Amino acid sequence: MHSVRFTTETSSNGVVERDFMVGEVPGVLWSPVSSPDHAPLVLMGHGGGLHKKTPALRARAHDTVTTWGYTVVAIDAPGHGDRPRTAADEQARTEFREAMAAGDNKRFESVSVRYAISLAERAVPEWQATLDALQERPEIGTEAPIAYGGGISLGTAIGVPLTAIEPRITAAIFGGGFFVYEAQIEAARQITVPIQFLLPWDDEHVDRCSALELFDAFASKEKTLHANPGDHRDVRWVGLDKEFLARHLGRVA
Amino acid sequence: MHSVRFTTETSSNGVVERDFMVGEVPGVLWSPVSSPDHAPLVLMGHGGGLHKKTPALRARAHDTVTTWGYTVVAIDAPGHGDRPRTAADEQARTEFREAMAAGDNKRFESVSVRYAISLAERAVPEWQATLDALQERPEIGTEAPIAYGGGISLGTAIGVPLTAIEPRITAAIFGGGFFVYEAQIEAARQITVPIQFLLPWDDEHVDRCSALELFDAFASKEKTLHANPGDHRDVRWVGLDKEFLARHLGRVA
Repeated sequence: MHSVRFTTETSSNGVVERDFMVGEVPGVLWSPVSSPDHAPLVLMGHGGGLHKKTPALRARAHDTVTTWGYTVVAIDAPGHGDRPRTAADEQARTEFREAMAAGDNKRFESVSVRYAISLAERAVPEWQATLDALQERPEIGTEAPIAYGGGISLGTAIGVPLTAIEPRITAAIFGGGFFVYEAQIEAARQITVPIQFLLPWDDEHVDRCSALELFDAFASKEKTLHANPGDHRDVRWVGLDKEFLARHLGRVA
Repeated sequence: MHSVRFTTETSSNGVVERDFMVGEVPGVLWSPVSSPDHAPLVLMGHGGGLHKKTPALRARAHDTVTTWGYTVVAIDAPGHGDRPRTAADEQARTEFREAMAAGDNKRFESVSVRYAISLAERAVPEWQATLDALQERPEIGTEAPIAYGGGISLGTAIGVPLTAIEPRITAAIFGGGFFVYEAQIEAARQITVPIQFLLPWDDEHVDRCSALELFDAFASKEKTLHANPGDHRDVRWVGLDKEFLARHLGRVA
């Protein structure tokens, strides 16, 4: 088992940002400057082609840290961010570009699904190893409640199978913006923790029905879908349930 | 034009309840015991077969009054509550019972749509006359901002065409739980005010797709759909945007 190796530490606006490695996987931990031990831990996933410190993700992490006092962790997905790209990663990127340039949405979908399946297969054990390593840290331990905090798109494609097999995750924020495939639906049927689901109503590429089918599949007794107009890159979220994480993770004293 | 004739007045838990008549239409006004003039006015509609003081509606009205200091108004739909039933109302009720007893969902749908169209045609001008009369009252006047505050089912079947033609309504809460018909979709396309839309995810009778089509049709730039598991009679709403009305009507000083 790998342990957490912290590399750099910076801080801004009351939030400490610590880069780390777990084995070959680079991650980042955001936490309050002064935080009690065992504060809840929120896992965040980045979108396809992006990385763990994308401005939108960092902004959401900062907001979670400063509003609730939680610790937020993000890791780079395979072939993303600071990670080397395999030949398969490079090929998927080339195929994406070609399908986009050709305006071939069918091919775009098939490349997306194939790549998402391969990313999720690699990313799920990486998230689990990251959790194992973080729980070895005394300030986190096994007492900190854990939620998957989103986001949509690739973050959900990875988060759904992770949450399905990971009993340490007690609540999850998912969303649309990716091509849902059958293994996702099957994983969703295994999930019983409370779910908040964010649906961009007018996704440029993805049929909203497949996202609705995914929402339908969660076995959770508590699940809420929020839809707002917009494509998944420009949706303006309005009227979300901001207390969702606090209700399920508890408040930091 | 009819004016408001108040009949009885009671109060409980800091909320004054005043019954009134506008012409032949009985209504009820809930307001704080002491309320500033021109407080926002929230219109609430009851479900099919129910009436203006159904416990769930009254509870929602009390909550709106005590949380936000708003005035809430509800009226009985034609053939409902304290209103006489026409032969057509009686016939619709008989047909509902027969369709239910026969488990004939197709017939249930056609009776529902026909009856909802006839109720909306009569109820929309009644709501407008009620607004005219209430605005004659100095404590309300034309300055009080107005929202349609729900609910789902018949409340939305009537609320959508009302909001489409009534410029005094500046925000609206709608929902699923009824059979959406083409005139509803056309009315929704005329609506541009902010919309909150509540969707019971597992309605016993109504296909969720028709409710999604209605949500899709609103021309509003700001519209949020919230879905929770449950049939429309037993859905437990979780994670709703409780600030929706306050954002659009303002706060009472």
